[in-house]
Amino acid sequence: MKIAVLAGDGIGPEVTAEAVRVLKAVVGDSAALELVEAPIGQAGVDAAGDPLPQETLAIARKADAILFGAAGVPGDEQIPYAMRPGASLLRLRKHLDLFANFRPAIMFPQLVGASTLRPEVVEGLDLLILRELTGDIYFGEPRGFRTSASGERQGFNTMVYSESEVERIAHVGFRAARGRRRKLCSVEKANVLECSQLWREIFIRVGQEYPDVELTHMFVDAASMMLIRAPKQFDVVVTGNIFGDILSDCAAMLTGSIGMLPSASLAGGSFGLYEPVHGTAPDIAGKDIANPLAAILSVALMLRYSFDRPDLDEKIQAAVSTVLSDGYRTTDIFEPGSRKVGTREMGDAVVAAIRNP
Amino acid sequence: MKIAVLAGDGIGPEVTAEAVRVLKAVVGDSAALELVEAPIGQAGVDAAGDPLPQETLAIARKADAILFGAAGVPGDEQIPYAMRPGASLLRLRKHLDLFANFRPAIMFPQLVGASTLRPEVVEGLDLLILRELTGDIYFGEPRGFRTSASGERQGFNTMVYSESEVERIAHVGFRAARGRRRKLCSVEKANVLECSQLWREIFIRVGQEYPDVELTHMFVDAASMMLIRAPKQFDVVVTGNIFGDILSDCAAMLTGSIGMLPSASLAGGSFGLYEPVHGTAPDIAGKDIANPLAAILSVALMLRYSFDRPDLDEKIQAAVSTVLSDGYRTTDIFEPGSRKVGTREMGDAVVAAIRNP
Ligand SMILES: CC(C)[C@H](C(=O)O)[C@@H](O)C(=O)O
Ligand SMILES: CC(C)[C@H](C(=O)O)[C@@H](O)C(=O)O
Repeated sequence: MKIAVLAGDGIGPEVTAEAVRVLKAVVGDSAALELVEAPIGQAGVDAAGDPLPQETLAIARKADAILFGAAGVPGDEQIPYAMRPGASLLRLRKHLDLFANFRPAIMFPQLVGASTLRPEVVEGLDLLILRELTGDIYFGEPRGFRTSASGERQGFNTMVYSESEVERIAHVGFRAARGRRRKLCSVEKANVLECSQLWREIFIRVGQEYPDVELTHMFVDAASMMLIRAPKQFDVVVTGNIFGDILSDCAAMLTGSIGMLPSASLAGGSFGLYEPVHGTAPDIAGKDIANPLAAILSVALMLRYSFDRPDLDEKIQAAVSTVLSDGYRTTDIFEPGSRKVGTREMGDAVVAAIRNP
Repeated sequence: MKIAVLAGDGIGPEVTAEAVRVLKAVVGDSAALELVEAPIGQAGVDAAGDPLPQETLAIARKADAILFGAAGVPGDEQIPYAMRPGASLLRLRKHLDLFANFRPAIMFPQLVGASTLRPEVVEGLDLLILRELTGDIYFGEPRGFRTSASGERQGFNTMVYSESEVERIAHVGFRAARGRRRKLCSVEKANVLECSQLWREIFIRVGQEYPDVELTHMFVDAASMMLIRAPKQFDVVVTGNIFGDILSDCAAMLTGSIGMLPSASLAGGSFGLYEPVHGTAPDIAGKDIANPLAAILSVALMLRYSFDRPDLDEKIQAAVSTVLSDGYRTTDIFEPGSRKVGTREMGDAVVAAIRNP
């Protein structure tokens, strides 16, 4: 298993370190693991004068999978794209064609109390947001600044999808639905946007190849309401890059903590990038208080999707479940009566639960 | 008070009828009111072969304010824009330059139980989403379908804002914040989009004219999380057309029912369009079960913003509060122990509460 470890900035290094410890513990045989660390984001700038150094990109390409922490520094949206630490992840996704972003939103029964939603609304929640990750307004051309007919400055971007881009994410979505409850909800804004009309048309066409999966369509505004009103109606939600950015964070928050949620970004085959859904969290970086479970569960997804080891995925999940049942909580999920631990101690607990299940 | 009444489709006519009854009751003097009805949406197509008939547009232009119900029929996104019932509202907004859309999300204390969020998270919630309504990807050019360099079909739209468009909504936002808790959160995606970078730059510049208002910036994905995590941190949230479409529905749902929420769309002066946030709700149309309170509260907003009669706004709000305290509930907000009523009966109750406060 050849894994590129790109820990990045903010809490990235801390949570990634725990994820790596868990990875080693669950794989056991250290000869089976080849871990190569490389800098990205501000760490890339510091080490090599580039948020996405050529060397890092080469290491990522040669790996079977990438474990990613977080990248960016506060206020870096001012810095031009090519030198912006926070844009390194976007560039990496695009370079490696990681178009299928899996963001499961799962409610851990032990954490129902940490959600701001009523228990009956989120208990047992298990939905998958599948976000297209290499197209849409994130990368659409033309973009930039222009002067209007009346001489005014304008900022503009292009939302665009081509048929093949929608087709491939649709197939991933329908296949994912087959492995779950066979329901797929395609989310767009076809009542306003031509881009969404193409999206919907293609989902309907591809859906004919999956007659066993129930296909529905929902406008993005209605979807944001329904996630709050009745999230358990959803199984797989498939949507474009920008709507997926918003809806996946919304879905994540239903579960009570974004510190718990992993994600996988796949390129079609087994190659993938795995990262916690949370970002750099600069306010808590370096304090040993960040929740490492999202990074740890990202390793679990990696073992399943890139290395076809669902057994190890399940081992990690069982260990996480054990530590939660034993009352271990980082600050973000702390409730009175539970045991407050730091990043490192949470990692220790998961490693221990793996060693003595 | 010259008011154009565009009831439209679905539950539009039912809820608008109750709103008009409440308007008449609260104004009292029937000579002071001039109500002109005109068809829009599918009703426009049926009456005049056009979802936005010239005659309707002329009536709307000549009025001091517009009371709007809802427009559209299921599946009409297939119909070309100019003939699509659901697009008539978009065209009306654009024609009348109704750029400032106020969507207050207020928690009625009597309805805390109808929210899917925990009471402590939403009790006392009072936030205002201010959505820019005539720009952005809704109207940006170019748009449509094109063929890519590799010969593939693409659907595309342009997200664009010009300086003056952002400036005018920023001023509306800062002024609104002055009348409230003096906090403005500008929401965009400046870490990815140039359009958002211009937006942020202009909010910072305009903000200097309002040193008494605290200005913060948040990315749209984080905002969707924070609305669920800790919505009371917000006072005024100002955002673009498409992000506002999503976030305002999200905020609306925090309060438990979109059937309760009014909105105002203003053009700069006192002229405005008032409409419930909910849509046509075709599944319940014509059944006398829709909640008319959003339409009734839209009339209250109209009296305040277009006719400078905050006293009448307060009368309506007090009446709505009374009927809620008396236990009247339409299906959407029904809870065991309360009294289930239909659309008409809810209207009766509000009218009675206005007559005998
Ligand atoms: C950091 C940012 C560019 C990124 C995105 O918008 O995709 C993040 O929000 C995410 O969801 O992974
Ligand atoms: C009906 C639709 C075109 C409209 C919009 O997207 O603006 C609606 O969702 C709204 O929020 O008023």
